[in-house]
Amino acid sequence: MPRVSAQYRDARRAHILAAARRCFVRDGFHQTSMQDLVREAGMSSGAVYRYFASKDEMIVAIAEENLDQIVAIVRESVAGGADLGEALAAALEFASKRHAEDGFAAIALVVWSEALRNPVLAARLRDSFDAAGQELAETARASSNGVKLAPDVLATTLLCVLPGYLLQAAIRGPDAVAPIPDGVRALFPSGR
Amino acid sequence: MPRVSAQYRDARRAHILAAARRCFVRDGFHQTSMQDLVREAGMSSGAVYRYFASKDEMIVAIAEENLDQIVAIVRESVAGGADLGEALAAALEFASKRHAEDGFAAIALVVWSEALRNPVLAARLRDSFDAAGQELAETARASSNGVKLAPDVLATTLLCVLPGYLLQAAIRGPDAVAPIPDGVRALFPSGR
Repeated sequence: MPRVSAQYRDARRAHILAAARRCFVRDGFHQTSMQDLVREAGMSSGAVYRYFASKDEMIVAIAEENLDQIVAIVRESVAGGADLGEALAAALEFASKRHAEDGFAAIALVVWSEALRNPVLAARLRDSFDAAGQELAETARASSNGVKLAPDVLATTLLCVLPGYLLQAAIRGPDAVAPIPDGVRALFPSGR
Repeated sequence: MPRVSAQYRDARRAHILAAARRCFVRDGFHQTSMQDLVREAGMSSGAVYRYFASKDEMIVAIAEENLDQIVAIVRESVAGGADLGEALAAALEFASKRHAEDGFAAIALVVWSEALRNPVLAARLRDSFDAAGQELAETARASSNGVKLAPDVLATTLLCVLPGYLLQAAIRGPDAVAPIPDGVRALFPSGR
């Protein structure tokens, strides 16, 4: 397949998902129809259906993009020598940046609620939580942080901060969560 | 008003809310109609409407009940001399107990998503987060826990664990979150 065509497809796909994010955050997942999405994307319905057969496929694609990005940030931070607190703080700050751009935290709330009824979404959430938790546990094993806790329990407990951060960013806004990354950094000194 | 009548009203109200919890968790908030709720409650629609004029009123009432209970647990723990970690762990364990009874964690996910579009719900979430945070900050001020962090930042950061705990309890089940209360306890030794 010619390169320009793959690029074109990626751009169209991203364009549709951006429209879907706006609709789901503004109107809710179930109050948005495929017709609404077609209108928001400004494309023909045939063009939209070529990429996504249903709203379910769209919310899964949006969740995958978000979750993969969070896991990648944690992985890069750990690879770059960050300690546990720093790696999580980097993920929180990335989430805030993305939230300012396109409502990242709000779409996360929609995804969680929808995961109660969509097993594909639920499985993706579980996998991403596992992946991020394993990265953090690796870091916890490598650092001596003075916390008397098994590295995987420490990582699992820490990772719980992320959804609370996203919930507050979505409901109270960026100012309310601004001190939290530094809070996470201070809670988990690496001792490296 | 005679006491038996107030008791009767409270019981009927609780009966309707229990039916609403089941419907919202099983089918989702927007896929549940008032007609579905009337059927689930096994009452006449006139009887249900006497207590709640809309699904919005029901979800707000459910959220208020849940949030008030969490804040009360934190408050009681603090009053009983618990340190920061212990007070939060008590709230997490209470949430797990309630989740086993009636899907407490799952309804929390529905509430968060709905709060994006319902300002009354959003305000209740903010107020409850503030109240729980203030209780925890009070405890943080009273204890010397070795963490170099302003008490309110420490409390705010800590409180973020709760939504992550509820999300995982709802999506992965009780076993996945079982180690977290002890994790929270270990992270925040009081030094009292």
